[in-house]
Amino acid sequence: MRVRQKLNMHEVESNQLMRHPETMSGLEEKVRSIRRGASELSIKSNETRKAAIESMAEAILRRKAEIIDANNEDLERAEKSGIPSSILHRLKFSEDKIASAVKGLRELASLPDPVGKVREARELDEGFVLKKVTFPIGVIAMIFEARPDALVQIAGLCLRSGNAVVLKGGKEAENTNRVLVKVIAEATESIVNSSWILGIESHADVDTLLTLDKDIDLIIPRGSNKFVSYVMDHTHIPVIGHSDGICSVYVDESADINMAVRIIIDSKTQYPAACNAAETILVHERIAPELLPELRKAFKACGVIVHADEKSRVYIPDAIPATEDDFHTEYLSLECALKIVESIDEAISHIAEHGSHHTDSIVTGSEESKARFFREVDSADVFCNCSTRFADGFRFGLGAEVGISTSKIHARGPVGLEGLMTTKWLLSGHGEIVADYSGPDGKNFKHKELCNA
Amino acid sequence: MRVRQKLNMHEVESNQLMRHPETMSGLEEKVRSIRRGASELSIKSNETRKAAIESMAEAILRRKAEIIDANNEDLERAEKSGIPSSILHRLKFSEDKIASAVKGLRELASLPDPVGKVREARELDEGFVLKKVTFPIGVIAMIFEARPDALVQIAGLCLRSGNAVVLKGGKEAENTNRVLVKVIAEATESIVNSSWILGIESHADVDTLLTLDKDIDLIIPRGSNKFVSYVMDHTHIPVIGHSDGICSVYVDESADINMAVRIIIDSKTQYPAACNAAETILVHERIAPELLPELRKAFKACGVIVHADEKSRVYIPDAIPATEDDFHTEYLSLECALKIVESIDEAISHIAEHGSHHTDSIVTGSEESKARFFREVDSADVFCNCSTRFADGFRFGLGAEVGISTSKIHARGPVGLEGLMTTKWLLSGHGEIVADYSGPDGKNFKHKELCNA
Repeated sequence: MRVRQKLNMHEVESNQLMRHPETMSGLEEKVRSIRRGASELSIKSNETRKAAIESMAEAILRRKAEIIDANNEDLERAEKSGIPSSILHRLKFSEDKIASAVKGLRELASLPDPVGKVREARELDEGFVLKKVTFPIGVIAMIFEARPDALVQIAGLCLRSGNAVVLKGGKEAENTNRVLVKVIAEATESIVNSSWILGIESHADVDTLLTLDKDIDLIIPRGSNKFVSYVMDHTHIPVIGHSDGICSVYVDESADINMAVRIIIDSKTQYPAACNAAETILVHERIAPELLPELRKAFKACGVIVHADEKSRVYIPDAIPATEDDFHTEYLSLECALKIVESIDEAISHIAEHGSHHTDSIVTGSEESKARFFREVDSADVFCNCSTRFADGFRFGLGAEVGISTSKIHARGPVGLEGLMTTKWLLSGHGEIVADYSGPDGKNFKHKELCNA
Repeated sequence: MRVRQKLNMHEVESNQLMRHPETMSGLEEKVRSIRRGASELSIKSNETRKAAIESMAEAILRRKAEIIDANNEDLERAEKSGIPSSILHRLKFSEDKIASAVKGLRELASLPDPVGKVREARELDEGFVLKKVTFPIGVIAMIFEARPDALVQIAGLCLRSGNAVVLKGGKEAENTNRVLVKVIAEATESIVNSSWILGIESHADVDTLLTLDKDIDLIIPRGSNKFVSYVMDHTHIPVIGHSDGICSVYVDESADINMAVRIIIDSKTQYPAACNAAETILVHERIAPELLPELRKAFKACGVIVHADEKSRVYIPDAIPATEDDFHTEYLSLECALKIVESIDEAISHIAEHGSHHTDSIVTGSEESKARFFREVDSADVFCNCSTRFADGFRFGLGAEVGISTSKIHARGPVGLEGLMTTKWLLSGHGEIVADYSGPDGKNFKHKELCNA
């Protein structure tokens, strides 16, 4: 993801004013009230936020019928409009999915409190103590696809981390989302004594949202690269949105052949539409003669189409000749690009030039190769001897994720509770003034590191 | 600071191309080479980076005469052009200042390595270990005022943290900067085997720089708010730049009067032009009758002009009546706004509405008031019983600073080595694939937290 901002906000604002005068002022007021709610929520205790999450979980189960009714309306409308079955599948909020979302919330409640964690502690001088502690960011705006389970997960992550949230889910899930936001607000707002969750529905509201830089601290858009770019180009608010996932698996000369095949197949086929699925396979020339015939069989069995460079077509003669473009392509399907490299250096250079700094994995038996790959590959997630598909907030133990960042600023890789925190510096003295520490006769600082507690 | 991005980059790029075709392609090539240098530098050992800092310190001392000659040229030209003496004072790179800059570098060398620090470590499953480790961001562009000591400090922070840097110092220090960059490059580049430092001089080069989003990872502009806004509005690159410093001191009812006066005077007068100087004084109504007569004397002695609200003018009748604007003003001089509040609640609300979320300090004898202030004031630096002037990278023990961030994203407060780092996730397995952890019969993750080592 990148952090983006917009130049010409005044222009957009006046356009908005002309187009939707009513909507805008109404939404502005609601977001202002969420901003006040965020201040309230940010100082609530861990116990209160946990109790609110428990109440949210309980209410979703209790009001399941209401939620499923709304979801059925969405499903019917979506079916009539001829939406692809893959989207229908994501849209459906079945009993199973509800149970799993509720389980996720309860796991979130059991995670350590992300608020008030001491990240640094230092005695500047005798009894003069500085601490850097985590604190909620404030108001997060999330724009995401038509997946009701994502709404529950995102709302849970924000509430657990003390952040207020403005949610815009995919249009196809409109009814489900509306009921979910209502259920969640009713179950929690009296506990945290704050209005912390707001659902919005129209594109016009999204455009308005992008102009509210005084009241929204961070926007996290999920969806197509095109949409993420649109958001980045139309707001002054910091944006975290991930870019392409051109992930690779590099098989080093010392790799175990079976392990390499298993990892490549899992990385490519376990869920090909995910951003952490592998798109490029790099193979050391010394292991190619042994690996590629096995890989060819495995790819055939799974129906993977291979775009191979000239050298590797010796072993996979039925592959499609790879073009330069293939190594820049995020297939998101059962297709991949394959290339033989002369050395780990060539593999690392290829990844630097063609990859998207998302997730790259080496398969190797050599500690030295592993160390080099870990040190030299500059990606959000750098793996050894495992599938690229592990790049995920839940699998990482972060309590789910709001997205995966390929930015180097603020948060990188899966963004969970930690990525939703900022920090503040707390300095506690007994009358210390800077004049006493200045000039040739000034006191010296001790700068003694303290245990983080 | 805010993180900003620019909308209409292509337009700017083509303008640039029309205006400075030569400059642009030359600079682009140089920055491209710095980008390659950054990759090299990022994987150099702690010892190598420390040795380079030592060599930099040694070379600055050894080539002192050359540096001072260049500085004298700058000073002469500046004097001729009638520049204010405060700027001349900052511009002068005296033997004392050189010695102090070199001392700063040696302190930087002695700080713990910021690269490869383990921020999180977790066993996902038996022997399947995930670590989040710090890694240099890449190429940092710094734009700063005419202060040669700032150049040395910034270059040192970047080198120590494994980042390459493009430096644009104030025009008045052009000769000094040119020599300093040369001395630093010659002393270090053979040690780290990388071309990691580049000085640029013209405004046209800055405009070009703002378009090089492929090769620059972060821009840190220092200087006027207007300039920081210009940078934010003209680039796609993430920007960290701090906004106003409307800092306040709140004197609680239980404060020690002497301590309160000392802290207010230090916060206001120790260096009034700094962004961490106090601009607003808030006083609890119960302590006002005792405090304000004392404060009035102290302000008089230091020549501080007071803009006071009606209630406090009872005690400071010669004060200028404060307007609403005064409480939004960053005076940066021996002037301040003063207001009596009814409670700590009113003080916290005032700070939330009028402050710039930079640095705010409470003077109090009550643990409860301190805890509330620490929890509820949402500023980068929240202090108790000490001067706002402590908000500074060196005083915080961060090994100097590249700036102070009032953003909530990425870095907040003084930005030292830590703020120049990103992270990567390293996952080390033995053939693990996601398919084994999926579906109803899938294995469960252990997610066992490990010691950070």
